[in-house]
Amino acid sequence: MNIYDVSRRAGVSIATVSRVLNGNPNVSEKTRSKVLAVMDELEYTPNVFARGLGLGTMKTIGIMCSDSSDPYLAGAIYHLERQLRSHGYDSLLCCTGPSLENKRTYFELLLSKRVDAVILAGSKFVELIDKNNQYIMEAAKELPIMLVNGYLNSPGIYSTVCNDYEAMYSAAARLINAGRRNILYLYTSHSYSGLNKVEGYKNALTDHNIPVRREYIHQCAKDLNESRKLIEKLSGLGLEFDAVMASDDSLAVGAVKFAREKNIKIPDQLAVIGYNNSILSDCTDPEISSIDTKVKQLCTITVDTLMRVFDGGNVPAKTIVAAEFIQKQTTNFSI
Amino acid sequence: MNIYDVSRRAGVSIATVSRVLNGNPNVSEKTRSKVLAVMDELEYTPNVFARGLGLGTMKTIGIMCSDSSDPYLAGAIYHLERQLRSHGYDSLLCCTGPSLENKRTYFELLLSKRVDAVILAGSKFVELIDKNNQYIMEAAKELPIMLVNGYLNSPGIYSTVCNDYEAMYSAAARLINAGRRNILYLYTSHSYSGLNKVEGYKNALTDHNIPVRREYIHQCAKDLNESRKLIEKLSGLGLEFDAVMASDDSLAVGAVKFAREKNIKIPDQLAVIGYNNSILSDCTDPEISSIDTKVKQLCTITVDTLMRVFDGGNVPAKTIVAAEFIQKQTTNFSI
Repeated sequence: MNIYDVSRRAGVSIATVSRVLNGNPNVSEKTRSKVLAVMDELEYTPNVFARGLGLGTMKTIGIMCSDSSDPYLAGAIYHLERQLRSHGYDSLLCCTGPSLENKRTYFELLLSKRVDAVILAGSKFVELIDKNNQYIMEAAKELPIMLVNGYLNSPGIYSTVCNDYEAMYSAAARLINAGRRNILYLYTSHSYSGLNKVEGYKNALTDHNIPVRREYIHQCAKDLNESRKLIEKLSGLGLEFDAVMASDDSLAVGAVKFAREKNIKIPDQLAVIGYNNSILSDCTDPEISSIDTKVKQLCTITVDTLMRVFDGGNVPAKTIVAAEFIQKQTTNFSI
Repeated sequence: MNIYDVSRRAGVSIATVSRVLNGNPNVSEKTRSKVLAVMDELEYTPNVFARGLGLGTMKTIGIMCSDSSDPYLAGAIYHLERQLRSHGYDSLLCCTGPSLENKRTYFELLLSKRVDAVILAGSKFVELIDKNNQYIMEAAKELPIMLVNGYLNSPGIYSTVCNDYEAMYSAAARLINAGRRNILYLYTSHSYSGLNKVEGYKNALTDHNIPVRREYIHQCAKDLNESRKLIEKLSGLGLEFDAVMASDDSLAVGAVKFAREKNIKIPDQLAVIGYNNSILSDCTDPEISSIDTKVKQLCTITVDTLMRVFDGGNVPAKTIVAAEFIQKQTTNFSI
C-alpha cells in the first residue's frame, strides 16, 4: 500500500493525498473525508518522512563525499546538486576525507543543521564492520538517508546502486571466453562496491573452471604510478598474466603504462579493463575499455527517490542501475 | 590602517580589537577606551563586512562553480569546503553551468539565503563585457565576494589569482629559447584567466621577434577529441608547427594523441605544454609537461582572506600566487 494506491482508490491526485496528509487546509471537507476513509480501508500508513511541499523544512539536503576531487565523486556531486536544485533544494556540501571519525563528525554536524535529508555519495560510507554503520542507521530514524552506490539494509535508508557484481562478472567472463586465463585483479578498497566487484571477478573464474588464485588479486592505492609500480613488481617476481582488470580507471592507466614500458602489445599480449569510464580511460593510448557506471542516472534516481519519500510514497529501499561495458582499444573480444 | 595597526598601537590582541568593534561586553572599560582612542588617532574605519565571531551570521558561505566535474574546479571545491569547515563555516554549493543567466539566478538565490559571503570558483564568472559583471559588483555592496582565479576591480570583491600571464609567457619563452618557432596555441575560453594566458603567449613571441600569427591561435572545446581533430585539421591544411601550448591539459592530451597517430616524435619534432598539471597530464605516454596552478594554495588564501575580511582587517583586493612549470616528457629544454 502506498500513496499511489490511496490516490487511485480515492479517485484524487497524489498532490491531494499529500495535502490531506500534511493537514493543508486547501482541500474540501468532502475530499478529505474520502481520502481518510480510503487510508483506513487500505490500512495505509505514510512513511515517517512524508511531508508537505516545503512546510517546516529547510529545503536543504546535506551531501557528503569522501573526496570531491575524485573524478567519479566530482561527477556525482555535480549531478546531485543540479537535480536537487531543479526541485528547489539547496545542497550543503561536506568533503569528509577518508576517516570514519571525520565522517561521523560531519554527519552529526549535518543533523544539527536540521537538513531535510543526507545523501552519502560513493560507496566509501558503508563500512565492513556493522557497528561502524550504526550512526547512519540511528540517524535514519530522524531523516531519510540516501546512499549513492552503497547499500545498508535498514529502515529509512534508500540506496541506488550500480550492478557492479554483474558488470565485473560479465567483463571477466568475456575475457575468459576470449581465451584469457591469467587475469590480474587490482582494487582500491573494501567498500560495498569494491567487494561486489571482486566477487564478480572471482565467480566468473569459478564458473569457468579457472582457479581463484590469491596472487592474482591485489589492493593498490588509487594512483596510476602506484599501480604501474605494483604490476612491474609482480611481473618481476615472475607472475604471468594476460589481462588486467581494475576496480578504477586510474589503476588501469598504470597497467597501460607498464605495458608500454615493457613493450608488451595491448590487447594481443595484455588486455586491460578499467572501471567508471572516466576521462582518464580516454587519455591513454590505446584508450582503455571500461565500464560505464552511469553516475548521472544514479544521481537522478537518488534525487527522484528522495522526492517520493518526501511525498509519502512507498519507495523501494534499493534501486539497481545496469552498468555498460564500453569497448575501446585495450580489449579485442566481440561484445 | 587596519586592525593589525590598531592592535599593535593599542598593545592588545586582534581578538580584543575585534571584540571592541562588535560591542562584545567581554572587554574591560579601560581597554575599550584605549582601543577606541587608538582607532580615532589612526582614523581607522573597519571594513563594512567586519563582524564578530558568529554573531548574527548563518556561518554559511555560498560556493559557485560552473562545473564541479571539471578536474580543476573539483579540486577547488574540495579545498574550499575543507578550509571553510576548519573555520566552522558551512558550504552551500551551486553548480551553475556555463550560462550567464543561470549564474545570475543562482547568485540571487544565494543572496536570498542570507549567506555570509559568496565564493566564485574559477575564472569563468568574470565576463568580458563589464555590464555583465554589474550584478556581482552590486552584490558586493551587501556581502564579500571572493574570486578564485578571477579579478574584478570593485569594492567588496577580493581576488586570489594565479599569475597565468607570467606562467604562459615564461613557458613560451622557454620553447623559443630552445629553438621552437611555430608554436600552436589552443585555448578554451575568453575568461579572465584565458585572456591572461594568451597575452603571455603573444608577448613572449613579440619580445623574441617572432610575429604573432592569427592562424596559430585557435579556440577549442575542453575535450581531448575535439582538440585532436582540430590539430589534425590544421595540419591537413598545411600549417606547420613544432610546439603546442594549451590553456588546459585536456587539449594537450589531444596534441599527444595527434602526434602518436601521425608518428610524430615528442618532444623532438613536437613539444607539448599543458595547463593545470591535472591527472590527465600524467595519463598519457609521454607524460605532459604542464603548469601547476596551485589550486590548493589559491583556495587556502581565498578562505584566509575572507576570514580577515570578517575580522575587519584591511585586506588586499588582489593576491597573486605564482604558478610552477612542471617538466615532464613532452618538452626537453633546461629549466
